[in-house]
Amino acid sequence: MSNKATVGGADNPTTVGGADNPTTEVRAAIVVTGTELLSGRITDCNGPWLARRLGELGVEVAHLMCVGDRPADLAAALRFLASQGVDLVVTSGGLGPTADDLTAEVLARFAGVELELDEAMEQQIAAILARYGHLAPMDPKTLRVANRKQAMVPCGAEPLDPVGTAPGLVVPVVGGPTVIALPGPPHELQAMWPAALATSGAAAVLAPVQPFASARLRLFGLPESEIAATLREVSATLDLAPLEITTCLRGAELEIDIRHRPGAEAICAALIDQLRARHSRYLFSTDGSSLDDQLAGLLTGRRIGLGESCTGGLLAARLTERPGSSAYVAGGVVAYSNAAKTELLGVPAELIEQHGAVSPEVAAAMADGARKRFGADIGCGITGVAGPGGGTEAKPVGYVCLCVTTNDGAALARDPVLPGTRAEIRDRSVTVAMHLLRRVLRAAEAEAAQATGA
Amino acid sequence: MSNKATVGGADNPTTVGGADNPTTEVRAAIVVTGTELLSGRITDCNGPWLARRLGELGVEVAHLMCVGDRPADLAAALRFLASQGVDLVVTSGGLGPTADDLTAEVLARFAGVELELDEAMEQQIAAILARYGHLAPMDPKTLRVANRKQAMVPCGAEPLDPVGTAPGLVVPVVGGPTVIALPGPPHELQAMWPAALATSGAAAVLAPVQPFASARLRLFGLPESEIAATLREVSATLDLAPLEITTCLRGAELEIDIRHRPGAEAICAALIDQLRARHSRYLFSTDGSSLDDQLAGLLTGRRIGLGESCTGGLLAARLTERPGSSAYVAGGVVAYSNAAKTELLGVPAELIEQHGAVSPEVAAAMADGARKRFGADIGCGITGVAGPGGGTEAKPVGYVCLCVTTNDGAALARDPVLPGTRAEIRDRSVTVAMHLLRRVLRAAEAEAAQATGA
Repeated sequence: MSNKATVGGADNPTTVGGADNPTTEVRAAIVVTGTELLSGRITDCNGPWLARRLGELGVEVAHLMCVGDRPADLAAALRFLASQGVDLVVTSGGLGPTADDLTAEVLARFAGVELELDEAMEQQIAAILARYGHLAPMDPKTLRVANRKQAMVPCGAEPLDPVGTAPGLVVPVVGGPTVIALPGPPHELQAMWPAALATSGAAAVLAPVQPFASARLRLFGLPESEIAATLREVSATLDLAPLEITTCLRGAELEIDIRHRPGAEAICAALIDQLRARHSRYLFSTDGSSLDDQLAGLLTGRRIGLGESCTGGLLAARLTERPGSSAYVAGGVVAYSNAAKTELLGVPAELIEQHGAVSPEVAAAMADGARKRFGADIGCGITGVAGPGGGTEAKPVGYVCLCVTTNDGAALARDPVLPGTRAEIRDRSVTVAMHLLRRVLRAAEAEAAQATGA
Repeated sequence: MSNKATVGGADNPTTVGGADNPTTEVRAAIVVTGTELLSGRITDCNGPWLARRLGELGVEVAHLMCVGDRPADLAAALRFLASQGVDLVVTSGGLGPTADDLTAEVLARFAGVELELDEAMEQQIAAILARYGHLAPMDPKTLRVANRKQAMVPCGAEPLDPVGTAPGLVVPVVGGPTVIALPGPPHELQAMWPAALATSGAAAVLAPVQPFASARLRLFGLPESEIAATLREVSATLDLAPLEITTCLRGAELEIDIRHRPGAEAICAALIDQLRARHSRYLFSTDGSSLDDQLAGLLTGRRIGLGESCTGGLLAARLTERPGSSAYVAGGVVAYSNAAKTELLGVPAELIEQHGAVSPEVAAAMADGARKRFGADIGCGITGVAGPGGGTEAKPVGYVCLCVTTNDGAALARDPVLPGTRAEIRDRSVTVAMHLLRRVLRAAEAEAAQATGA
């Protein structure tokens, strides 16, 4: 195990362990085409999506390349990947009807075969384009040329039915990698993926693959260095080599992904037990559920009212992201001004004067006010200094007061100094608030369960 | 010009025109290292960032590659790029202190030189690590080894001072590309970039580069196909070949980027004039300013109150993203329930009963209510069916009623049916609301200017 886990951080996730690739491993590469990706204006999402799908299948992704729309660049990339001994290449893009969509041609040359017309495909594409015709009128001749171009399939390849207008291809290459060519628009690529896997070409490459099993743990409030230390300690008595462990900071939360091949189930379970034993206070999810999932469940049958200042509506927006949230989100007030805090949330003006708008006292009054104002069971108040200006020595930028109160008299408050930019401070405030809500609601559930049991 | 501009869309921006690369062009490649990038869990942001910076300099990015932390993979990528004749390679990652940080070693081998200890660098790193020591305690021997490792520099390379803990490198390669090696954490990479460009190695490669000039136009409410048609028409009388034109849908807005080498200024200006003449109704920015920038300017000296239902606080959150927004955002109410609409925003219960909670009438009453409630000059109300459930034939999912009203009696309302998922409908509603606000505020400014002039 490397000691890389001592570095890392939000933008720099760290992976430790993981058995070295046995020679039976199936290695894949992803080639994303599109000149716009090389300008940096667009961030590719097909590459990461395909990497996740291949990873889930148990395939190791060895290379991810973006190339422009020049056929020579794609051909060079394919030759390079063949020289690296990869078994499977998945490409995205370049399958459209226009002159610069050249993936099929490049693939035929790479496989050393001719392109041939697939007449059934030609008819299918014509039918699809007829449906789309009103959106982008084309003259009939251009249309016929475009149809035919997209129906040209490398000899021996398996065509994939279009999801949008472009077909896909699975191309076997003698002495080289099998190539799955998918269209560039993400929704078409994603929808076509199952059909690509179902082809005999893909099935043959993927036959020897042993799938990964994986688990995801989520923790809140624990520094990443603590997990690194725990992993070092645990590894003294437990051989973690069969596990690939990735830790990743996401805002104020820490995710731990554990992946392994069949056979390492007991080691994985033992590690999770150790993490649970050492960090139960911070560990809030071992079943993959997110904070949002859990909170939606806990709020069911209740109603919440929100009073937000520095987060400016972000907590309300996050809670209402979910369909059906209207059942438990009664409403919220974005009380940016002191007048709004007083008039809409009933925060006494004297309280603001005495303690300042950013104070635990005002956060509590905002929580109470929001709860009462919306006739809710639980209320949450947030007031803080999001920056970049407005900080003082006593209340620096990042100082945020949060409070959750309930009709039953429960209350939970925090006033941390959160790190980061204005946007990060606002986002983290929302996460902290949601964890406070979760804790209060779980305590209420536990109490109710106890009362029922007694 | 290809006719690719007829396809495209949100996830699939289209680029047309752009002179083919003359042979004097400086071509670059980006190699991002990190096994975690190949798992798809993390989306690389260094590659796009570097691509944008290189593009701004006028350098063409020919390849963008992600490779794992295996030295053989990085070495193979470098050899491939050398074979493709690129002049400059920028790498990120692999410069840390641990055993699997092997970029410097791989680069020395690629350049055919030895690693040598840079003693000044060793002392500098030691001083930095001493400062960080309390965060991740290491035993002194491990620390010394780590220091020394990071201070090993390929012979002839120019080291770059660490921003975090890792130094960077600019490595000249005889008969091959110059390599700029930067650390993986994005804030370190970005902070080190100016120093990398200032090295004599980078300056020598970049000397022949002619910078691009660029313009960005933003339109709202115009279908992308209209722009494609306009470009086809304009190209009949104006040779657009020296321009590289990229159109990209971002939510409900359309961005047009025009890039060119020195000498094509007049063609660029003529194209912008043509676009302005044909689409003035939709064109809202030619100077690069965003909707948010413009609205912040228009709201200065005024106060706004918000009443949101389906957007759940997103409009308030967006307006308060900007530092200093407390000067003009008086506040907002997230009135998810009918009771909240009535009690907090003063929407008459009869109005809701008569027209439904999602109706132009209720949106107008919410705008008025928010304005009055917060003592503001301008109010905005949004109520709609964000879905996925809750749609009817008369009021389908995506039906959103928006209204802006002012104390001067101005009002502007829309009730579009917006496409997309729940998240997209909510985001687009916010964009539409902001455009309505912009239009009302500009009309008010024009009136005020006229009054002053008269």
